[in-house]
Amino acid sequence: MGFRHEVRLSGTGGQGLLLIGKVLAEAAAVYDGKNATQSQSYGPEARGGASKSEVIISDEEIDYPKATEIDFLLCLTQESCDKYASDVKPEGTLLVDSTYVSSVPEGNYRVFQFPITQKAKDELGSATVANVVALGMISALTSVVSSESIESAILARVPKGTEDLNLKAYRLGRTLVEEAG
Amino acid sequence: MGFRHEVRLSGTGGQGLLLIGKVLAEAAAVYDGKNATQSQSYGPEARGGASKSEVIISDEEIDYPKATEIDFLLCLTQESCDKYASDVKPEGTLLVDSTYVSSVPEGNYRVFQFPITQKAKDELGSATVANVVALGMISALTSVVSSESIESAILARVPKGTEDLNLKAYRLGRTLVEEAG
Repeated sequence: MGFRHEVRLSGTGGQGLLLIGKVLAEAAAVYDGKNATQSQSYGPEARGGASKSEVIISDEEIDYPKATEIDFLLCLTQESCDKYASDVKPEGTLLVDSTYVSSVPEGNYRVFQFPITQKAKDELGSATVANVVALGMISALTSVVSSESIESAILARVPKGTEDLNLKAYRLGRTLVEEAG
Repeated sequence: MGFRHEVRLSGTGGQGLLLIGKVLAEAAAVYDGKNATQSQSYGPEARGGASKSEVIISDEEIDYPKATEIDFLLCLTQESCDKYASDVKPEGTLLVDSTYVSSVPEGNYRVFQFPITQKAKDELGSATVANVVALGMISALTSVVSSESIESAILARVPKGTEDLNLKAYRLGRTLVEEAG
């Protein structure tokens, strides 16, 4: 059995979950030489705004690209937290944005709660990079993908002219975890 | 057994395959009320520039989001055509951009060859919307997702200020098929 790491990024439409999923998958595959898939499911419920993006990283070819035992779950809304927390595997990790998530279901997982969106507003003047702040926190809380690779993938993927802001957001996320730890 | 339709969009990095995959999946799910997944695989070979995006549309929940029997394959490069043509199921459909693809492997599938990128340049002054021209052709060649839904999803997803160009590109794609048929 090879190494397999499953990440689910959840929240609502417009929070940029697909972008950070893509960055994470590209960082793992293109820069770190692993295999990765990024996927998004849409159902009629997507009308209501629920959104999730999954990234699977492996050292082998990925035959089943849907998350079944989640190692790491990010929740940017209360709804996504209520819906997905129980999918995290025992001793997995749950990162929630306490700007929007006030109660976390109990379970056998590590929970990190930070006011991610509030921090993005206060420190960077922009709530729209909360997704990239979260990516920095994910990077610091796991060691599956190298931080250098993630920075390279950010620079390759974000819109021209926003590279500096996004790098700052990413590094803020890492710092928030490092200072807490 | 419910209805299941598998689409693979293939070419090289930077051709906007993820965008049209996302538009197609959203059109099916958010506007047409079906279930849909969109996924992208990355491997060390992605360094070389090969890129594919898959969309699965179903009237049931999608448990296995990887394409196994492709109903529709789009190839924007020769490399992607050589690599994936054999994955198309019997009597499936293969759409190739003859601007870049000169030879199509023989097989038991319908083949449509159009100079998609060249047409985008000549008619719209922009090769970068070749992906959306291709989406228009896919829409006209299949009837899995309604054209109205795809137009709504395009308007919701393309960068602000490019809506008109992208709608024109989409309609050009549809016209190219209708005129040929």
